[in-house]
Amino acid sequence: MAEIGVGMLGYAFMGKAHSNAFRKLEYMAWPPPLVPRLVAIAGRNQDAVATAARRYGYERWTTDWHDIVTDERIGLLDNGGPNSLHAEPTIAAAEAGKHVLCEKPLGRTADESHEVWRRVAATGVKHLCGFNYRFVPAVRLARELIDEGALGELRHFRGRYLQDWGDDPTLDTWRFDPDQAGSGTLGDLGTHVIDLARYLVGEFSSVAGIVKTFVSGRRVDDAIEAAVEFESGAVGTIEATRLALGRRNAFQWEINGSHGSLYFDMERLNELQVFLDGEDRTRGFRTVLVTEANHPFMDFWWPPGHIVGWGDTFVHEVHHLLRSIADGSDVAPHGATFEDGYRASEIGEAIVRSSAGGRREQLTFRSLTDGE
Amino acid sequence: MAEIGVGMLGYAFMGKAHSNAFRKLEYMAWPPPLVPRLVAIAGRNQDAVATAARRYGYERWTTDWHDIVTDERIGLLDNGGPNSLHAEPTIAAAEAGKHVLCEKPLGRTADESHEVWRRVAATGVKHLCGFNYRFVPAVRLARELIDEGALGELRHFRGRYLQDWGDDPTLDTWRFDPDQAGSGTLGDLGTHVIDLARYLVGEFSSVAGIVKTFVSGRRVDDAIEAAVEFESGAVGTIEATRLALGRRNAFQWEINGSHGSLYFDMERLNELQVFLDGEDRTRGFRTVLVTEANHPFMDFWWPPGHIVGWGDTFVHEVHHLLRSIADGSDVAPHGATFEDGYRASEIGEAIVRSSAGGRREQLTFRSLTDGE
Amino acid sequence: MAEIGVGMLGYAFMGKAHSNAFRKLEYMAWPPPLVPRLVAIAGRNQDAVATAARRYGYERWTTDWHDIVTDERIGLLDNGGPNSLHAEPTIAAAEAGKHVLCEKPLGRTADESHEVWRRVAATGVKHLCGFNYRFVPAVRLARELIDEGALGELRHFRGRYLQDWGDDPTLDTWRFDPDQAGSGTLGDLGTHVIDLARYLVGEFSSVAGIVKTFVSGRRVDDAIEAAVEFESGAVGTIEATRLALGRRNAFQWEINGSHGSLYFDMERLNELQVFLDGEDRTRGFRTVLVTEANHPFMDFWWPPGHIVGWGDTFVHEVHHLLRSIADGSDVAPHGATFEDGYRASEIGEAIVRSSAGGRREQLTFRSLTDGE
Amino acid sequence: MAEIGVGMLGYAFMGKAHSNAFRKLEYMAWPPPLVPRLVAIAGRNQDAVATAARRYGYERWTTDWHDIVTDERIGLLDNGGPNSLHAEPTIAAAEAGKHVLCEKPLGRTADESHEVWRRVAATGVKHLCGFNYRFVPAVRLARELIDEGALGELRHFRGRYLQDWGDDPTLDTWRFDPDQAGSGTLGDLGTHVIDLARYLVGEFSSVAGIVKTFVSGRRVDDAIEAAVEFESGAVGTIEATRLALGRRNAFQWEINGSHGSLYFDMERLNELQVFLDGEDRTRGFRTVLVTEANHPFMDFWWPPGHIVGWGDTFVHEVHHLLRSIADGSDVAPHGATFEDGYRASEIGEAIVRSSAGGRREQLTFRSLTDGE
Repeated sequence: MAEIGVGMLGYAFMGKAHSNAFRKLEYMAWPPPLVPRLVAIAGRNQDAVATAARRYGYERWTTDWHDIVTDERIGLLDNGGPNSLHAEPTIAAAEAGKHVLCEKPLGRTADESHEVWRRVAATGVKHLCGFNYRFVPAVRLARELIDEGALGELRHFRGRYLQDWGDDPTLDTWRFDPDQAGSGTLGDLGTHVIDLARYLVGEFSSVAGIVKTFVSGRRVDDAIEAAVEFESGAVGTIEATRLALGRRNAFQWEINGSHGSLYFDMERLNELQVFLDGEDRTRGFRTVLVTEANHPFMDFWWPPGHIVGWGDTFVHEVHHLLRSIADGSDVAPHGATFEDGYRASEIGEAIVRSSAGGRREQLTFRSLTDGE
Repeated sequence: MAEIGVGMLGYAFMGKAHSNAFRKLEYMAWPPPLVPRLVAIAGRNQDAVATAARRYGYERWTTDWHDIVTDERIGLLDNGGPNSLHAEPTIAAAEAGKHVLCEKPLGRTADESHEVWRRVAATGVKHLCGFNYRFVPAVRLARELIDEGALGELRHFRGRYLQDWGDDPTLDTWRFDPDQAGSGTLGDLGTHVIDLARYLVGEFSSVAGIVKTFVSGRRVDDAIEAAVEFESGAVGTIEATRLALGRRNAFQWEINGSHGSLYFDMERLNELQVFLDGEDRTRGFRTVLVTEANHPFMDFWWPPGHIVGWGDTFVHEVHHLLRSIADGSDVAPHGATFEDGYRASEIGEAIVRSSAGGRREQLTFRSLTDGE
Repeated sequence: MAEIGVGMLGYAFMGKAHSNAFRKLEYMAWPPPLVPRLVAIAGRNQDAVATAARRYGYERWTTDWHDIVTDERIGLLDNGGPNSLHAEPTIAAAEAGKHVLCEKPLGRTADESHEVWRRVAATGVKHLCGFNYRFVPAVRLARELIDEGALGELRHFRGRYLQDWGDDPTLDTWRFDPDQAGSGTLGDLGTHVIDLARYLVGEFSSVAGIVKTFVSGRRVDDAIEAAVEFESGAVGTIEATRLALGRRNAFQWEINGSHGSLYFDMERLNELQVFLDGEDRTRGFRTVLVTEANHPFMDFWWPPGHIVGWGDTFVHEVHHLLRSIADGSDVAPHGATFEDGYRASEIGEAIVRSSAGGRREQLTFRSLTDGE
Repeated sequence: MAEIGVGMLGYAFMGKAHSNAFRKLEYMAWPPPLVPRLVAIAGRNQDAVATAARRYGYERWTTDWHDIVTDERIGLLDNGGPNSLHAEPTIAAAEAGKHVLCEKPLGRTADESHEVWRRVAATGVKHLCGFNYRFVPAVRLARELIDEGALGELRHFRGRYLQDWGDDPTLDTWRFDPDQAGSGTLGDLGTHVIDLARYLVGEFSSVAGIVKTFVSGRRVDDAIEAAVEFESGAVGTIEATRLALGRRNAFQWEINGSHGSLYFDMERLNELQVFLDGEDRTRGFRTVLVTEANHPFMDFWWPPGHIVGWGDTFVHEVHHLLRSIADGSDVAPHGATFEDGYRASEIGEAIVRSSAGGRREQLTFRSLTDGE
């Protein structure tokens, strides 16, 4: 089987999640479209990156990400570094002919995100922005049901990503540093809500938002709230917060259409709540356990009823990208491209502008050539 | 035991709910503060109102509400008529010295609501606006927990009232007639969300909203969406729709504070989800079945675990008002006064203005004397 | 409208529940088959029964239940007294030509229950044993779905009635006195499980049980556990306990058939979980909120989504009996007759015998004439 | 890091689950107690075993399991073959000095299970019976809470393992062949219930059971039902079925003690429902998401709120065994030893005897030397 050399940037949360995905892929998603060969891992702390290399099985490590860009054995850069390290290595790798997977948010600003998209798209490599929640089986099933028309015309999307770890004022992480992170909850959690809304419902047309920082001394946003409109005419709300006590990873969303509704909560990621009209006396939301043989990605896993974990969504994501690389198929629509990454940034910034200016912001998106 | 004569306006949904409350009150909330005597019921359709009188035990019926205002045996007007009949009879009854209970929304507009408040307050009678959801045991418990500081500083409120009966374009009811209803989902469901937000979290400071009509030919709003701020600094979202298929009466809200969180769904109105920090390895939302002897209103009902119904919330509401009448105690804070009714209207209109003008609206409320 | 005079025995928990049902019936179940006239209430404590008469509106009270039997204005005895007072007054009333409603368990023993059934049946009056859970809308819907064949051939019933108030060793009530109660959890909760199993699945054929008392000094059973077989071939389990901490009124049951399954929990009595085969990718249990216009009993109540309470089940029960009295229709199959009451006792005793003797007990039921 | 050579028997469901565990272990459970080296895999079908070897990375494959027993590079036999292949290879491997992991049920009969235990124990190797559900984080947390006394004295265990794939009469698998499987649902699912009951509540003292086959022509049991007693005095029920439509992998159990209760459902395996007394007005079952840093096994995985999958329980199981091998620590109490495997078989057979003989069976267990 053909191999692809992988260079990983980052060894922390995302480094672990992606490395695990590459390792599992080759035997769970059998036969793999390409066999990932873990060539090198880059990170700032020498001890930590050396340990990560041993732990996950990378052939070598480096504290200088340029080593990955110049390594000819590497065909794919997986960028799981802090947000401030998304743009430059990703562009450099693509311009060196490597396919690229970049964690979300694509850039710290819409401008930076657009730059990454524009320059990477120009190279012709495959690019995927790490909105891994598109690869939750229940989310993919939702998309397929919508595509089949099971919900009819979509009218509402209400999505909220609730976590609670941000409550501690003594916490110190790059995620609270505007220079490294670009934004706070917005880029971290809000972009996930925005991306899934776009994946499931379609493009946004306007946002009316409020951005809020609660914790004293914090330099990034703790929460965003927005009323939103979609091009299709659907309306709804978008929320993200790190201060919803008791909610650990509650990315919850509901979609209402003219023939049915869907509800999802990431804390129960194997379940999709489905309401379809026409049931008469047994009408009600069904708790669909998305583990059936004919459910998305389930050929990789176990018999029905045996649930998958959060980490497994990355196996699906990486598999999707490797298949695109292997057979030339499009990353879109099921994978988020860098255009999707850019657009999520643009929508996020519109929420920030709306909050600052007190106006509902109509969305306009730059084309690929706008920045040239 | 002392009696109070009751005059009812309206025999449909609210007429039934309130009549049942008056009938149950005297033996379930034992001993009752006042024994309601059902003197008269008024309605437009002669056959229907006559049947209602027999059914619910009113001593007489009339098709002219003025008969109630002039009936000296009546000490309380309960106005459950369509919204267009809220202002005039309510003011007239109060000015005739009768206490008044008026269904929500208080008026069809903020102006009308303010007028009702101003003129009724001037009479000195007791007035209660029919936000019955304040009288759900779980809601009262939520308020008590918040008052005790169990949640700490409040940061988020996200409330949505989801129904789905509005999907049928052939439906014809006064609720779709702007003249009779004033607004659509906003006045019907949105005001409930606004009122509970005020009751539980405090006063609003700004709203950024979107108002939407989906059904072709409909002349009132089908849905509202808003990002909101409270005077306390809390932020969140407000939603109401009649087009969320599968949601029949899903008034759902969540509050997050610095020490805990609450979640509620009216379709499971006997339950309050409670998260309190400090639980270490058994942290998690508790499903509190609000039926314990030391839970609000439970001295009226059954042993623990035996749930109450939606209709029972009106028993609590009417009991509260009769007690205020009997002993002169304030309707506020647990009952919604006409000032609360007016403010809910004001906030609703701000959402409409925000949607139309594309701006976040800062809220200012008129005082009692503003309209004089 | 025709009236029926009601004589109530008992003013405590069941006295309150039944009195409320008679009072609500006449306007909620409109038009009522008969208008209940609350003639008299009997109880042992003079002050308490006098207060109850005033509270619930009985025309008179007595401390001697014989007064009810001899009162010619009374057409229906409702016996909500302690178990030791079930047999004699019920038989006497029936032999005086009054219809009878007797709380469960019908008697303290199978012999006593059979005697009540035999002697009351001989009089020709209508008789209903107070298994009110047959009148939960979701339970009736379950029965109707089963009758329609929606579940196919039934294979499993697992039912458990879990409460936790029995944990306190200092509690003193007639329910812990073998002379007054006959048994403990078995007669109180276990008979409910047995009755619903018979109503939904059919007759029992054998039981293999364990009966247990945990609390030191208690003279009745705290818990029963049984593996059971039905005549149809279905198998399952029956449990009842007053020592399941955290479960307040959790009468939970599940039925599995060859085409579907049902699940129910009395703490959420407005919901029926329904699984029906053939759904392919959206297979899953539906949470049916049993409040639709075409759901059982819902013509009495509110629009969809507005739930009923535990107390409302008695309105349905009493309505059913009054209709049978009014039009001569059978109490069975939806109402439990005294034969059903007797059979529940027989099955309960078989569990006790099985526990004592260490054998699975095959069930045989006496006919109406067995005891003569 | 030290290595251990692994020989795998079986390439189907369990072969995949265990192989995945060995592969993930070395980087997720970092640093691993021993690094598993996948030396050989054995299976009956040559093409299938060859593919499995390539897929999972075994160095070689064989259709003769004796090759594993004689391979000196192998230090651990993992037996995931059909039940009829549990005893002989497991004993042979142990007698060849290899540690052994054998899937449940340990043998097809209690005699066979005892033989395996006796002969393997005599060799002194480490032995673990594959009751992987002991390694679900929520189950381990339950055990720890019980060990700490959080539940007080245990009174009830009700456990049921519900699946629905057995409904199809055309299905043909070794699991329906008495010679290969020994029993049907009993050995497959019932033993899991029995084992967790023993792990969490303690030893059984008696069982009164019913064993049932529904599907025409099927030669093994489809369902078992039992009322059970524990040595501690706790009582409850045990059930297992492959015919509970809609339940895919619903291993549900509840434990009630004198200070609290626990509830679990394998279809939501990351959650433990916990009730603890003393909460007053906020009493209720907590939904504990068992993903906190101080929850069992969570140092292997992700930040709080990011759930693990069913397959991950095998990583925990294999890690536990490798640590025992590496440092000589006991497999018990958290791992099931072959004595546990034998006892589960003994209890299962007592249920079968009880069903056949119509008597409650008192349990007696053979000691290690009984069969010599």
